[in-house]
Amino acid sequence: MSFSLIARDIAESPTLALNEKARKLKEAGELVIHLGAGEPKNKAPIAALLSASAKLTEGDVKYTPTEGISMLRRAIMRYTEENYNRLPNSDNVLVSNGAKQALYNVLFSILNPQDQVVILSPYWCSYPEMVKMLQGLPVIVKPDDENFNQRVEDIDDYVTGDTKAIIVNSPNNPSGKVYSKEFIAELVQYCEERGIWFISDDIYHKLIFDGTQWPNPYDYTTKDLENTRVISINGISKLYGMTGFRIGWVIAPRKMIEILINIQSQITSTTSILLQSAAAGALTGVQSTVENLRLQMQNHRDVMMQELGTFDGVRVVQPKGTFYCLADFRAYGSSSVEISKFLLKKAKVVTVPGVDFGMEGYLRLSFCGPIKGIKEGVERIKWALDPNSPNEIYIGERKLVRDWL
Amino acid sequence: MSFSLIARDIAESPTLALNEKARKLKEAGELVIHLGAGEPKNKAPIAALLSASAKLTEGDVKYTPTEGISMLRRAIMRYTEENYNRLPNSDNVLVSNGAKQALYNVLFSILNPQDQVVILSPYWCSYPEMVKMLQGLPVIVKPDDENFNQRVEDIDDYVTGDTKAIIVNSPNNPSGKVYSKEFIAELVQYCEERGIWFISDDIYHKLIFDGTQWPNPYDYTTKDLENTRVISINGISKLYGMTGFRIGWVIAPRKMIEILINIQSQITSTTSILLQSAAAGALTGVQSTVENLRLQMQNHRDVMMQELGTFDGVRVVQPKGTFYCLADFRAYGSSSVEISKFLLKKAKVVTVPGVDFGMEGYLRLSFCGPIKGIKEGVERIKWALDPNSPNEIYIGERKLVRDWL
Repeated sequence: MSFSLIARDIAESPTLALNEKARKLKEAGELVIHLGAGEPKNKAPIAALLSASAKLTEGDVKYTPTEGISMLRRAIMRYTEENYNRLPNSDNVLVSNGAKQALYNVLFSILNPQDQVVILSPYWCSYPEMVKMLQGLPVIVKPDDENFNQRVEDIDDYVTGDTKAIIVNSPNNPSGKVYSKEFIAELVQYCEERGIWFISDDIYHKLIFDGTQWPNPYDYTTKDLENTRVISINGISKLYGMTGFRIGWVIAPRKMIEILINIQSQITSTTSILLQSAAAGALTGVQSTVENLRLQMQNHRDVMMQELGTFDGVRVVQPKGTFYCLADFRAYGSSSVEISKFLLKKAKVVTVPGVDFGMEGYLRLSFCGPIKGIKEGVERIKWALDPNSPNEIYIGERKLVRDWL
Repeated sequence: MSFSLIARDIAESPTLALNEKARKLKEAGELVIHLGAGEPKNKAPIAALLSASAKLTEGDVKYTPTEGISMLRRAIMRYTEENYNRLPNSDNVLVSNGAKQALYNVLFSILNPQDQVVILSPYWCSYPEMVKMLQGLPVIVKPDDENFNQRVEDIDDYVTGDTKAIIVNSPNNPSGKVYSKEFIAELVQYCEERGIWFISDDIYHKLIFDGTQWPNPYDYTTKDLENTRVISINGISKLYGMTGFRIGWVIAPRKMIEILINIQSQITSTTSILLQSAAAGALTGVQSTVENLRLQMQNHRDVMMQELGTFDGVRVVQPKGTFYCLADFRAYGSSSVEISKFLLKKAKVVTVPGVDFGMEGYLRLSFCGPIKGIKEGVERIKWALDPNSPNEIYIGERKLVRDWL
C-alpha cells in the first residue's frame, strides 16, 4: 500500500500516544502514575453543562454556520475585550474544533510549499508537525539560556525572506515559561515591521502563577485588528479544564477569517452546536472555575518543585504558568526517550520525552493530576534513577528492589 | 496581506454559504423557502440524547483516544458487520468530526502533490476542493447519459499512472442516483486490479427508496479488509438526521488507519466524548428513526416529483435515494448560478447551482424540508420562470406580479 510521503512522515502525537500506553497498563492492573497528562481532573463549570443540556433537551442539534453560532462568537468578542483590551468584530472570530484546529487553519491560510515558520524551543510538539503537513519548513530557535529565555536578535538570525510566521506560546507548554513583556513587545514590533505573522498561542494565558503579569501581545502594537500581524489563538480546554469539549478559536483580521472559514468548511465544516453552547455557557457564566483551577495548579506546582528540589541530579526552572515543568535529566542519560521508557517500565511513571518539545535530555512532568500522584511519582523516579535514594520502594502492596545502579 | 495560493483558491462551501444567505433573508423578515438544505428537521433519537445527557451529568468530559472511544468503535464494527457483511477489527475504525473529516484524512494519507483523484459527476461539491487543498488534481468524469449513469470504460479513459483513488457516492448527492450493482461490481474489480483506492462515500446508504437494493462495494471483492482497496466512509448525520453531532467514520485497512490517526491527532485530535456517546447511543438504540426518516423522505420525494412533473420546462430524473434531486433548468438559462440568484431574488426560494456539483444548467432541489415548502417552493419557481404559469402569486400576504417574461 502506498501512502503519501507527508502522511507517512507525520509523528504520532507523543502525549496522546502516552495516554494510550498508560491506559493499557492501567487496564492490565498496573498502578501507573501519569505525569504526562494535559488536563486537570475538574468537572466542567455548571453553566457549561446546563447550556449543553438545554440544547439536548430541545433535541434540535443541527448544522450551524462554519464560523460558529453568534452567541458563542459574542462571548468570545467580550472575552477578547476583557482580556486583550481589543474588541473584535464578529467577523474577526472563527470557532474551531479546539485551538489545535484553529492553528492548523491559520498555518494552512499562510503557507506556500517551502515557506518557513519560526518556532521557539521548547515548543508544543504539534507545531513542527503541522508546518510539515502543510509543506512548510519549521525553523527551530533554541533558547538563549537555561531559563528558556529567547532573544529577538537570535531569532533574527533565523528569519529569511521565506519566513511567514513566528509561533509564540506563553505560558509555554512544556516549560511553563512566561516570556518577559520586553521580549514580547520587541518581537511584536519585529513582526509588524517585517509583515511576519505573530501567532500567539494563548491557551494557558490564565493559568499563571505568583502574580506574574501575562504579556498581552496586542498591547505592543498600535495597529488595529484589521492591520496587525498579531493573531491570537485560545480556547476553553485549559481555561476551564474543558478538554473534552473541543472548542477553540482564533482572533484575526477579517480577510484572514474569510479564508479560514473556507478552509474549515471543507475539512470539518461547523463544530457541534452542543459544544458551542457549552463553551458559550462557560464564557458567560460564573468564572470561579478559572481562579480555582489556577490556585490549585499553583499549589500543585509548589508540591512538584518541593519534590524535585530534593532530587540532586535533576535541574528544573520553576514554571510561572501551565501545569507542566520541563526538568533536565541529562545527568541520567542523553536520550529522553530512553529515560522516559525506563521510568515507565521500572517505576510505572508516565513522563513525556523532551525531544518531542525540542529539548533532548529533558522530561516534561505534568502536575495537573492529584498531589499524591505528584509526590509518589517523583519518589518513584528518584528511586529508579538516583543511587543515593533507598533501593526499596512500595508500589501498592508490591515491594520493588532496585537491582540496577 | 499575503495568503497561500491554495488557501486563496478554496471555494466557499456553496451549501453552507446558501444557508447563511437564507438565514439573513429570514432575519430580514422575508418568507424564504429553503430548497437548499442538507438536513431533515427531525429530532435526534432519544437513545442518542440520553447517552450524551448521561455524560453531561457525570461532568467528566475529557480527552479520549484520537481514534474514538471503544464503545463507539464497537458500535461501528457491529454496524459494518450488519450493513456491509464485513466485521472489521477495532483498528480498522477511525472516528472523525463528521464524514467530511474522515474523507479529508483519507485523501491526505494517499495524495502526493499532482496525484490524481477521479470524481464521478455529478459530485458532492467538497470532493474537488479537498483534492486541490491537498495539492492533488481532481479528474472529473461526466455521466454517460441523462440518467447520471457512469461506465467503467469511460472512467478508464481518465485513469493514469497517477490516479490514486476514485470517489463514489451512491446514493448520490446531488442527484439521488443509486449506481447499479453491475457498475459498482465492475468498478470495484477495476480498482482492486490496479491498486486504486475505491473510496465509497456511503453517508446516504440507508436513505434509499422504492425497495432499491444498495450495492455494497465489499460484496464485489474477495479481498479481506486488510488487503482490499475499498474504503468506506459513513456517519450519523444523514442516517439519523444528527447533522449537528458531527460524527463520521472510516473503515479501512489497519495500516491506513494508523496513518489517519496520526493525521487527525495533529489537526483536531479527538472528537468530543459527548458527541461520540450520542453516536454510540444512536447506533445501539432503537433504529426506528432510520426507517421513519426513509419513509418520510420517500414521501417528500414523491411530492417533489409530482410538483416538478407539472413544470414543462424542467427535466428531472426521479431520485432513488438521498433527499435531493438534480433538475435540468437549461431551458431557462445556461448559468445555474444566475438562475439560482434570480430565484432567490424574485421568488425567495433557495436552490443550489448545479455548477457546484459539476452539472452546469442544473439546480439541486432538496426535499428534506416540510411538504408545504416543497409545494410552494416549486410553485414559486414556476411562477418566476414559466411564462405559461399565472403571473400573480402570493408570498404570505404580499401579492407579487411577474413583470418579466
